[in-house]
Amino acid sequence: MPKIRLRILLDPDGHIGPGKVELLELIERLGSISAAGRALGMSYRRAWELVEEMNRIFGRPVAEAQAGGRQGGGAKLTDLGRFVVTRFRAAEATAERAIAAEVAALQDEVERGG
Amino acid sequence: MPKIRLRILLDPDGHIGPGKVELLELIERLGSISAAGRALGMSYRRAWELVEEMNRIFGRPVAEAQAGGRQGGGAKLTDLGRFVVTRFRAAEATAERAIAAEVAALQDEVERGG
Repeated sequence: MPKIRLRILLDPDGHIGPGKVELLELIERLGSISAAGRALGMSYRRAWELVEEMNRIFGRPVAEAQAGGRQGGGAKLTDLGRFVVTRFRAAEATAERAIAAEVAALQDEVERGG
Repeated sequence: MPKIRLRILLDPDGHIGPGKVELLELIERLGSISAAGRALGMSYRRAWELVEEMNRIFGRPVAEAQAGGRQGGGAKLTDLGRFVVTRFRAAEATAERAIAAEVAALQDEVERGG
């Protein structure tokens, strides 16, 4: 099955794509930036850089530290972070439906040549 | 103005995105793979690799050598190459319209935080 990969280039700069959104989803699920990064095979530092980049793009945090507990220092998404995930996944699904015919036409040419 | 960047991942492998499509458009306009690559700041070798990759994905050529003339060795798109350009650009435009509201909602969050 062919798929699409969507990236939204925001103004004045910075983009949101499937990599950053998947990181946010994993932070929400795992309650930790380092665990989320690890699940994606990236270093803690890289995961933090991506979060910081989103914070910069939107001018405020997409994730925040969660106080204490035994393990200390978890993280969760802010309302903004959840909004970014929801809107991006909606955009992806809508785009995929909207261009299904074009994608199928290109895939047909692959099958024909195969 | 925010923009989208679309990539179509074909099955079983290989993708079509704005870089390859722009190369095809320039081959058509400039009549030469090396001139098209140069216009995009890529080496002749890199431009050829991208063309060969598309030929492999579709199982037949997207561009073909054009016989002779004084300068020899130009190139033009095949019907398949033109089809790929047309379908991809249509998909891009359709996707952009379809998700305009989601993109605007994300851009609004950028403005709000700015």
